Formats: sequence, C-alpha cells, structure tokens
Amino acid sequence: MKDKNDIQSFKTDRPLIVFGATGLLGSQLVFMACADRFSPHLILHGSHLPRLEGLKAEILEAGFDGIEVTITTDTDEACRQGGYLFYSRSVQSGKQTREEMLLDNAPTAKETGLAIRKAPNSIHRVVCVSNPSDIIGLTLLIHSGLAPEQVFSISALDTTRYIRAIKEVLGIEREDMSGVYTLGSHDMSMAVMRDTVRIKGRSIDKCISEGLMTEEDWYEIQNRVVNGGRMVIKKRGHTAYQSPAYLGYQMLLASDEAVFSYPSARYHNSSLFPHCFLSLPTIIDSKGCHHQRQSYTDRDIEALKRSYQSIRTLRDIAIEHGHLPNTALWEQKLQEQTDELILKEKSKNI
Amino acid sequence: MKDKNDIQSFKTDRPLIVFGATGLLGSQLVFMACADRFSPHLILHGSHLPRLEGLKAEILEAGFDGIEVTITTDTDEACRQGGYLFYSRSVQSGKQTREEMLLDNAPTAKETGLAIRKAPNSIHRVVCVSNPSDIIGLTLLIHSGLAPEQVFSISALDTTRYIRAIKEVLGIEREDMSGVYTLGSHDMSMAVMRDTVRIKGRSIDKCISEGLMTEEDWYEIQNRVVNGGRMVIKKRGHTAYQSPAYLGYQMLLASDEAVFSYPSARYHNSSLFPHCFLSLPTIIDSKGCHHQRQSYTDRDIEALKRSYQSIRTLRDIAIEHGHLPNTALWEQKLQEQTDELILKEKSKNI
Repeated sequence: MKDKNDIQSFKTDRPLIVFGATGLLGSQLVFMACADRFSPHLILHGSHLPRLEGLKAEILEAGFDGIEVTITTDTDEACRQGGYLFYSRSVQSGKQTREEMLLDNAPTAKETGLAIRKAPNSIHRVVCVSNPSDIIGLTLLIHSGLAPEQVFSISALDTTRYIRAIKEVLGIEREDMSGVYTLGSHDMSMAVMRDTVRIKGRSIDKCISEGLMTEEDWYEIQNRVVNGGRMVIKKRGHTAYQSPAYLGYQMLLASDEAVFSYPSARYHNSSLFPHCFLSLPTIIDSKGCHHQRQSYTDRDIEALKRSYQSIRTLRDIAIEHGHLPNTALWEQKLQEQTDELILKEKSKNI
Repeated sequence: MKDKNDIQSFKTDRPLIVFGATGLLGSQLVFMACADRFSPHLILHGSHLPRLEGLKAEILEAGFDGIEVTITTDTDEACRQGGYLFYSRSVQSGKQTREEMLLDNAPTAKETGLAIRKAPNSIHRVVCVSNPSDIIGLTLLIHSGLAPEQVFSISALDTTRYIRAIKEVLGIEREDMSGVYTLGSHDMSMAVMRDTVRIKGRSIDKCISEGLMTEEDWYEIQNRVVNGGRMVIKKRGHTAYQSPAYLGYQMLLASDEAVFSYPSARYHNSSLFPHCFLSLPTIIDSKGCHHQRQSYTDRDIEALKRSYQSIRTLRDIAIEHGHLPNTALWEQKLQEQTDELILKEKSKNI
C-alpha cells in the first residue's frame, strides 16, 4: 500500500480483477475502487461483451486519470496477470433457494478457482460476495490452491444489522456495545450470538434481569437481524447491493493500517465444525483473514451448530455434484484442525 | 472544506440534500459521498417512502461512522436545513423526447426552486443532473432566487467523450490536447467545438492539412461524441448513471483546492445567447461556477447558435406552460449582459 496522501498514487500496483463486473453490485464496486484510486489497472470479467463495453465507456468517460481498463469474457485471461480478485459472478436464473443458487454458481466458481491455480502471476486476495457465499468461497479456495487466509466471503452485513438493531431497539450507541457478532452461515440459519454481547459492560441476560431490556426485545433484535436482507428486498425492490459493495471494498482494502474487524467467512476445520467455510470472529490485515479466539456459552455453540448444518448440507451437495472433491482429498494444509479457536464457557448469567 | 487528512472529519459541516435519492444515479451519488465522508448529515428525498427506507437501511448497514440519515418525501422539509443540493429528481414516465421530459420534470423543479427560496437556512450550491438538464437547471435557478454561480448542470460527459474520441481515433494522449470542449445544449444539438482544439499545439485544420488526420476522422470523432450517450444505453441496457454520478459528485466537491474544469451548464445572458442556461467554458471553485472567456471562430459560433436554438425552444415551451415566468420578469441580476465572455476570431488555418 502506497502513501495515500499522494493524489496521483494508487493503493496498490497490482491489478484489480472483478468477476461479475457489469452487475449492480460489481459495477458499484468498480466505481468505488476507481474513485478511491485503488489500482491503475482494472480487469473486468463478465459474460456479456456489450455490457462490459458499456461499463468501460462509463469508466473512461468519468475522467479518472491513469486507469487502464481491460475487459474480457475469458476466465483464464482475467486471472492471468494476478492481483486482487473481487468475485461477484452470478448466474441470473431467477432461482431463489440456496441449493438452486449453489447449483447455478458452483460450476463457474470451480472454473475460476482452476484459472487462479494456473495463472502465471499470483492472485493476492479473493473477496467473494456471490451466493451462497460460504460454499462459493469454499469452491474458489479448494480449486485455486490458495492459502485459507487469502480467500474470504462477506458476512459483515449480518453483524452490521445486529449492531443497528441493538441501537434502534434499545437506544444504545455503537461505542457502548462490544462482542456483537452474527456468525456461522450467511443465510437464514445465521447464528446471532447472544452471550458474547456486552452492552455498557453487561451481558444481555444481565440487562434483562436488571430490567434494562426484555426477552421480547431480544426476539425483536434477532428477528431484525435474520430478516434484514429480506427487508431491504421488500423496500427497495431488489437485493441489497450498495452496502455489500462498500463492505466488500473495505475487505479488499484491508491492511495492517486499516484492519477490517467485522466477522468474515473463511475456511475452518475443527472437531466441532470440520471441513467448512463459515463466519467466526476474524480480522483482515495485510496478510489476509485470520480467526480470532473467542469463548462461547453452550447456548451460542448450539446456535453455531445449527448454522453449521446448513453449510454442511450445501457442501455435501456440491461434493455430490462434482463441484468439490471429497473432503478426504482436500490438500494437507486444509486437514489441520484448529480446535483452540473455539473456547467453551458456561453461560454465567442465566 | 476541512482538512482532508483527518479520517474522522467530513469535507463540509453542511447537510447534503439529494433529490431523486433512490434512483440508480442518486443512490450511486449517495454512496460515493458517504465513502468519501462528504457530509455528516444526509437528507434524502424521494417520492416513495419504502424505497427511501431501504436505501437508508443500506447506508446504516454499510457501517459508515457518524453519518446521520434523514429521509423525506416533503420538498420543503428536504430544503429546510440548507446545504449542498444534488438534484436528480425525475419522473419515470418512460417518455423520451426532450420536450416530454421537460413537461414531466419542470413542475417538480419549480416546486424545488420555490422550496429553496423559502428555506430558512441557505442552500449553498445546486448541482443538477435531471434532464433536460439545461432547462431544469434554469427552472431551479429562476424559482430559487439563488445567484447564477450557485446553480449548475452537468454537461461534462459531452466533453469527456470528446477527449476519449480524440484519444481513440487519433491515438493522442490526454496531455497532448487542449481546448477540447463540447458546449451549448446537453442534447443531440450539442456543439462540438472544432477550432478551439489544439493537438500537440496544432489546430484540427492544421492536422488535416499536414496529413496527421483526415476530414473523415473529424466526422468519426464528432459522431462518437454526439452519439456517446446512446451507445452506453445500447450496450448497458440503460442510460449512463455511474459516470454522471461521479462527475456530479466532483461538481459538489469542487473548491479552490480542487477546481472542476470541464465545461458545465449555468445561466448565461448575452446579445448572442440571451436569457438561457447552457454550457460554455467554466470552472467551479469554492465560490461556484464561473464562465471563462474564450475566443471562437465563426464556424464554432454557428455551431453554438444551432445548439442555442434547442435550448431556446425548450425554454419557451416552459414559459408557455407556466413553469417559468416571461424573461422580462426575471430578476434584475439575470438581466445584465456579459457579451465580453464570447470573443470572435477568424479561423486561421482553413
């Protein structure tokens, strides 16, 4: 990362490769990156050449200085020069269930992973926002052969919605809360952590026992988090795309100087949650996405286990359809277990 | 404007008011302004409350720190606190001609102008991107009572397309060209200035006479400029919205430290072009949008006159329908003529 005060400089010299560049989310990300002078070289991949040409025209005609734009419909070509890779490639079939989306999007994720593996220049980081984002991230990781730190999927919106819900239901400011995490799967089975939260230093149980909030408040908060994505679709008439573009861009940008600290989904393998890709407390820094140790109550572990089932089900469907190899065949570095990340504690305040 | 190196600070303390906030262009502008920390207070106006709520959810859930978001469908309410105003309000009737768009959009522009006039806190600057942007800008100016420097409409895309066309047709770099202007009306009658251009110091006529380009190259360049907007619509499937959002944001941002120097449309009154709103060479600085003196050949003046006819026709339709008062009734400050801005020269190199 270069000196950010030099207006002519860029954040990185590496190319920024965007898959799904012409979609609403992808093109939003592209303009954010141009406006912020992320990279002097954009490589935009899509399935429809005229739409890529139209997007390129808009970029060139916005008057950004010194940004070269390459467009391609060829996956290998897009990956050849290496760099930062933003993955928002998605088949627009109108299908809705996670399983249908998986079967639509896993083949192109596998193709992209294989293109990353054979690219002569290294891919530095992959940020995935294509749904189902946990398994699409896993598919990119397995086929690319990149390190687990280098490939991560967005789930931060599930946590920012939790923060917003606490703020609005309880009237609590952001700086008065900590340990607010939504973990596990980025879908309706997401695990809204209850016992990690501290509000002005108090657990949710303690807040309830002291009359500062009610059990109904907790259900209302949880409901707003789990249904937050549906609410945006209902209100705007389409899925949220601007907030994930912004958060996804922060994940691309993240460095030792600007650590991204909302939970992200990445590879995980422990005796509790073997061979999966899910959200736990993480940070993203210059070296990539790293788990943070966290202790959980039995109640929160149970919520994580339910959420893990959703990921395991989709993972096994991907294996069954040949989009992923059997877990026993995954690389040696993916077989090491990291049980020490998940510490157990008893819920103290029930 | 505050110190841009303080990451917690904003570019201004004034609110940013966005009309048409939930549209593709408006919401793109909103996210650019949030990402760039333009203002700590967004006031978002639209005609559909649920869409405003959905956009607000996306902003709050993107995790921008310290940005307050107010949404309203009330025009007076939106203007009450003053600030920077971005105008992308547009009736989505599917109508296509400039006259139809004018009759759709002039009534709400008049309503907004009147709301600006009676707002207890002053509106600092108005940037208009709603089409037909010259007459909509004029309508906002006349009814608001703001100074001509404070209200301006986007036309920069017509000039950035000209720069791109010269670059691509002739293989000339940006730094080797000057005087590249598309002026007059922001529509198909736009005036692509031929004789103001210098390419490595040579006029277009001189380039042609020296065999560096052909008359056909000039027609090809002119064609790409005039049809650039249609090309984007054809390729992307919708009108350009990301490039005008970016350029419109630069017009909001423009200050003595970051002057915006592509031509913009603003009020103009001279014996050649009386009582109108059109693009001439301008700069936007901390005090607003100012004309730059420029000398023109007879040929370029003729192109400007043809373009002016398009604006005058629409202006007179707006007057006829009661959206604008008769020009004789416009304020005294709008009656002063500035003939000195347009100098005439003979084309030297024919």
